[in-house]
Amino acid sequence: MSVSLSAQGKVMSQLSGVRAIMKDIVETLERADKKYINLAPGNPVVLPEVEQLWRDCTHELLASKSFAEVVGRYGSSRGYEPFIDAVIGDFNVRYGLKLTRENVLVTAGSQSLYFYAANCFGGVDATGQLKKVLFPLSPDYTGYGGVSLSPDSLLAVKPNLEISPAEHRFKYRPDIDSIEIDENVGCVVFSRPCNPTGNIVTEEEVKSIAAKALLHKVPVLVDSAYGPPFPALNFTEMTPVFDEGIIHCMSFSKTGLPGERIGVAIGAPEVIQALECFHTNASLHSSRYGQAIAALAVGSGRLADIATTVIRGHYAEKLQVVETTLDSEVDDSIPWYMHKGEGAIFAWLWFDNLPISDWDLYQSLKNEGLIVVPGSPFFPGLREEWAHRHQCIRVSLTASKEELQTGMKILAKRLKEIYSAT
Amino acid sequence: MSVSLSAQGKVMSQLSGVRAIMKDIVETLERADKKYINLAPGNPVVLPEVEQLWRDCTHELLASKSFAEVVGRYGSSRGYEPFIDAVIGDFNVRYGLKLTRENVLVTAGSQSLYFYAANCFGGVDATGQLKKVLFPLSPDYTGYGGVSLSPDSLLAVKPNLEISPAEHRFKYRPDIDSIEIDENVGCVVFSRPCNPTGNIVTEEEVKSIAAKALLHKVPVLVDSAYGPPFPALNFTEMTPVFDEGIIHCMSFSKTGLPGERIGVAIGAPEVIQALECFHTNASLHSSRYGQAIAALAVGSGRLADIATTVIRGHYAEKLQVVETTLDSEVDDSIPWYMHKGEGAIFAWLWFDNLPISDWDLYQSLKNEGLIVVPGSPFFPGLREEWAHRHQCIRVSLTASKEELQTGMKILAKRLKEIYSAT
Repeated sequence: MSVSLSAQGKVMSQLSGVRAIMKDIVETLERADKKYINLAPGNPVVLPEVEQLWRDCTHELLASKSFAEVVGRYGSSRGYEPFIDAVIGDFNVRYGLKLTRENVLVTAGSQSLYFYAANCFGGVDATGQLKKVLFPLSPDYTGYGGVSLSPDSLLAVKPNLEISPAEHRFKYRPDIDSIEIDENVGCVVFSRPCNPTGNIVTEEEVKSIAAKALLHKVPVLVDSAYGPPFPALNFTEMTPVFDEGIIHCMSFSKTGLPGERIGVAIGAPEVIQALECFHTNASLHSSRYGQAIAALAVGSGRLADIATTVIRGHYAEKLQVVETTLDSEVDDSIPWYMHKGEGAIFAWLWFDNLPISDWDLYQSLKNEGLIVVPGSPFFPGLREEWAHRHQCIRVSLTASKEELQTGMKILAKRLKEIYSAT
Repeated sequence: MSVSLSAQGKVMSQLSGVRAIMKDIVETLERADKKYINLAPGNPVVLPEVEQLWRDCTHELLASKSFAEVVGRYGSSRGYEPFIDAVIGDFNVRYGLKLTRENVLVTAGSQSLYFYAANCFGGVDATGQLKKVLFPLSPDYTGYGGVSLSPDSLLAVKPNLEISPAEHRFKYRPDIDSIEIDENVGCVVFSRPCNPTGNIVTEEEVKSIAAKALLHKVPVLVDSAYGPPFPALNFTEMTPVFDEGIIHCMSFSKTGLPGERIGVAIGAPEVIQALECFHTNASLHSSRYGQAIAALAVGSGRLADIATTVIRGHYAEKLQVVETTLDSEVDDSIPWYMHKGEGAIFAWLWFDNLPISDWDLYQSLKNEGLIVVPGSPFFPGLREEWAHRHQCIRVSLTASKEELQTGMKILAKRLKEIYSAT
């Protein structure tokens, strides 16, 4: 049956960003005539210690009377209270805050949170003005590309590049002067640490952006899916910023619970309340089993421990493998640059003056048995043409060390052929 | 921090329908100076056999290798495959269907499903035309009032009333001739069995509505949250209808998993696909633990068994208590009518020519220690004035038999006072 969609339906029934490529990858792997090294996944590695933690917490839940209450009752839209209390308790001690339940909303994964924010604060306002969802540092998380019912509202700012040619490293820096935040901006969103680049925007930069936004009472959502205290996937020192106007957004996916969809927003009560109502109308509340086991793991301190002693080290070591292999394997004459690996679970590579597009590079590597993700879908909301956009790839650190080594060697070989052909 | 909301943000940050009243109820109970009989909850009773089923299934999941996969990996937006396969398997045998995975989408509770449908098919279309979300039989589920980003698109049709004065019973019948479905309708939604009325629209009526809709390729969502085969909260014979164009929508809340938010849509692949994309963009996928234990309970036949041997009987018995008590306690001269109790977990009462509003009746009963839900919020989308709308209340069957008896006696006494005062 062919159905007719509303304007919003047309927008939302499009697969955005990297999802079209993921479909190509899945199809490639399904008809696999050969073995591929797959460096595309965003799916975290199931680490034995982490799995054991969640098994233990589930056994504890089953042994308690709470089980029936958790799965067998509707809950508050705000979230499962013992979970909220565990998060508040941890953060108040750890960061010297005075959070109460009014400051917290639990959503069904953090993607929902960005969907609610993008459409609650962004989009057409009562006067017909289109309020922007501003990404102050492009590239950023590809999933942001799909969250708005009014895709025209997405606007990204091109960054400055800090390049170390001799080391083949670079770092994106927000172009603070070009970040305009006025009454036409509904909200600001960026990830820290950043998926896909591994970048950690400095504390000073976060504060500059937040100060600009506060002048016009624009909420700033800091996507901390990879940040401390869990999963603590920062490889350099970083502290979350809790300035007024900042909504600190967490995800429990990289702590080993992606299947359970747990997102947490921490911020000013007025902002939380608006998002909570949207959540209520759109889906009542988030599922509670995941929240209940997370409450046990957060409250006992086990999650923060395992994040710094197991999860962080696992990916930091993988990043090291990618760096070492590329440094030794890629021809020094090639203008290749790896983004400084400050956190998250990806390496982000930029090939200056790449003779082919990122999409062609992806196809060409696929022919050699290596799957990476082309970089262009990671610039949602960027309107200006920029050659750089088509010169990057994302490499996942979820593969084994051996796969990463072999993969980077394939990449090095292919780069040499591509650059020397011109 | 006071933030500025977009037009959609203003709509979605309002609490719709019965939720404003629920807030009043929660506050009443919190400052409880006396003991109340609370007949408001929609929260199902945690039945021991049902709790045991979900505990057993959780132990089975923990004992299997699937556990890590279920909680520790992102899943497909379509849903957890073993769960989809279990539902398909059950339905194909039970109803002689030929469903495949293409026919199924799992959402985070069925509220999300109606939110996606209302905004995917309803709302402003590309030509600026407002496409309606049509409720063919008012009253209906209050939560439908909050699902649309364009509340003007909600449109309900007034029913016909079939009254048995001697028995003090009545039944709403869809006014088929007044149900206009053309290209200005985006989708049709109704619950069967109905929350709040306990009504079961006849198979013939469903087919008439579906046939009208099919002429304009308008999807018809049949909200089967209380229907067979689980939770099987039908007290009279009923068979789900799977005509072309019908989206059969299930919920696992009344099978004892409200905390886990499991909604299932079964329908034509094109419709499912549009909803799936919306789901992906807005929240990636639904949480998987609930789906995994539901897969075990559905696949083994245990859930269908427990639904008919335990869940159905529990509420049918409660309904009996309400009917018997009202029949013996309410003064026969009062024009009171109970809706025919054909299913769901509520009794719906209508007081013809009620001298006060449903809201005042609610307040007045509260003073006597009885909490019910006033009926007026259960007519979302009904635009015409209709005295009947302010003459009904909803009584939950989740209280104990004793509470129901005492509650109905309080109601009977209060009704006598109210009607005789005029």
